[in-house]
Amino acid sequence: VLRTRLTDRFGLDHPVISAPMGVAAGGVLAGAVSRAGGLGLIGVGYADEDWLREQQRLAGDTPVGVGFITFRLAGDPRLLDVAIDSAPAAICLSFANPAPYVARIRDAGIPLLCQVQTLRDARHVLDLGVDVIVAQGTEAGGHGERRTTMTLVPEIADLIAGRSPETLLCAAGGISDGRGLAAAIALGADGVLVGTRLWASQEAIVHPAEHRAVVAATGDDTIRSRVIDIVKGFDIWPARFDIRTLRSATTDRWHGRESELRAVADEEVARFADAMARGDAEQAGATVGEAIGLIHDIAPAREILRRLTVEAEAVLRAGATLAR
Amino acid sequence: VLRTRLTDRFGLDHPVISAPMGVAAGGVLAGAVSRAGGLGLIGVGYADEDWLREQQRLAGDTPVGVGFITFRLAGDPRLLDVAIDSAPAAICLSFANPAPYVARIRDAGIPLLCQVQTLRDARHVLDLGVDVIVAQGTEAGGHGERRTTMTLVPEIADLIAGRSPETLLCAAGGISDGRGLAAAIALGADGVLVGTRLWASQEAIVHPAEHRAVVAATGDDTIRSRVIDIVKGFDIWPARFDIRTLRSATTDRWHGRESELRAVADEEVARFADAMARGDAEQAGATVGEAIGLIHDIAPAREILRRLTVEAEAVLRAGATLAR
Repeated sequence: VLRTRLTDRFGLDHPVISAPMGVAAGGVLAGAVSRAGGLGLIGVGYADEDWLREQQRLAGDTPVGVGFITFRLAGDPRLLDVAIDSAPAAICLSFANPAPYVARIRDAGIPLLCQVQTLRDARHVLDLGVDVIVAQGTEAGGHGERRTTMTLVPEIADLIAGRSPETLLCAAGGISDGRGLAAAIALGADGVLVGTRLWASQEAIVHPAEHRAVVAATGDDTIRSRVIDIVKGFDIWPARFDIRTLRSATTDRWHGRESELRAVADEEVARFADAMARGDAEQAGATVGEAIGLIHDIAPAREILRRLTVEAEAVLRAGATLAR
Repeated sequence: VLRTRLTDRFGLDHPVISAPMGVAAGGVLAGAVSRAGGLGLIGVGYADEDWLREQQRLAGDTPVGVGFITFRLAGDPRLLDVAIDSAPAAICLSFANPAPYVARIRDAGIPLLCQVQTLRDARHVLDLGVDVIVAQGTEAGGHGERRTTMTLVPEIADLIAGRSPETLLCAAGGISDGRGLAAAIALGADGVLVGTRLWASQEAIVHPAEHRAVVAATGDDTIRSRVIDIVKGFDIWPARFDIRTLRSATTDRWHGRESELRAVADEEVARFADAMARGDAEQAGATVGEAIGLIHDIAPAREILRRLTVEAEAVLRAGATLAR
């Protein structure tokens, strides 16, 4: 057992939260993670309240949390009500300013996680009184920014130690095995948010062809780009965020030529939707992070959590034997 | 004492190699690092053989190593002779293919370190039979690429374990304190290459105004760009490499407008040289990595190495107590 402030505070067996990956992290995955002793989050992404209710049903009786793209809540305020009414284990807000939503979540007594990508953002959400800061490095799959887990986590740990020591810190980005979990703890995190490794689980909502493509790839094969947002028809993101995916024929063709792509966006959106539906991994490019080079199978979520902590324990024990 | 395969193989007291930072890492710094029980490297950068000889003299009697920008050796083949003739503690090659130089270095019995930025490069230098692979993440200051320390290190550790277990692995990029060193060991490294933290040492060749600017900055304040190479008059780098520096008026003005900048390069090169000479940190932008947010003083190299291992030992011991 790997016991941290995160496992103590949330009553977990593993210091692991599943990332609220839009589409991939539905109720089946979130429920499996929570039942295995982690904290499972449903990733609402671009979905609506009917989808969220259905996923909450699929999660079963085990408490799970809900993760939102913060700036989507402005356009669909009912979504947050649905989440709050279900008394989730946590609510996680990522991307854009969470300030308008903090009071409602706190008044409902729901633990609030905020995912940040810079020290500046961390200062802001600390002022808002969040319970857990998730420091997301650029290695992460999906939307994110430029700073890396390796330096962002200890820098935010120092900020927390100086201003609000009871706030918890989780590392996100690049963590797919026990070495990454052990490293995150060494850097000052109380736990980790795991996306890509759980994307590569049997419970994730992922096309089998995308799973196969990712197991075969190395960490050299991902790219941060705006291209995928454009061809998905979601060219709505603040300029600071882009999206990391597997490199694909689509990113190879358009990365660096975004203005040209926008000029033919309608056509390319249709083409991409078709490729996604066919599970054409070569065109589509799975939404995964750099840690794919450490992933060699599609395992059950419970087994993934078990490996993470068993390996991390072994790594930490071995590390201590070097210090003598 | 933190004992690893690196300290055993090189007879060190600390599993720490100083990065061969062009300009900043002269003989005084390299000598101080080696005398403190690490492995000090002189960073030749764009300098010539007279400069290298002078720095080797300044390093004193303690053995130090020499680090080259690999593609510069083609234009100045005498440089490698000067290094080899001095029987250095190691030679480190970074950027571009080291193949043409491996045999001469190996025949002279000098340990060869190769710094790589991708798994693909790591496979190549492993085939060449290097002694130490330095896995450099994008968080590093100076020239580099996109992959991060957090995923590149364990992925290369797996490669080494499968193909050439006697090869050593060092992590570079983002490591400025004991947490980073402990994390690197957790990720599978035998030691670390430390740049930015030793750039911020009393022995580094750095203008005091740049030191002050970096101590005051956070990790949010650096940027990877081609701008600084252009305005330095060294627009000679392969397209895959750019350079991380402190953001400055120069990068703010020109980043993303590199073609326009190249059109007025002569004028901007003169302006930048003048800013550098004046120690105008606002214009110039120090060559440092993301880990500057963890640096709060300009310390002697010996003290920096001591802190790195004392802190790392404490972190590793504390980590082991979580596993129970």
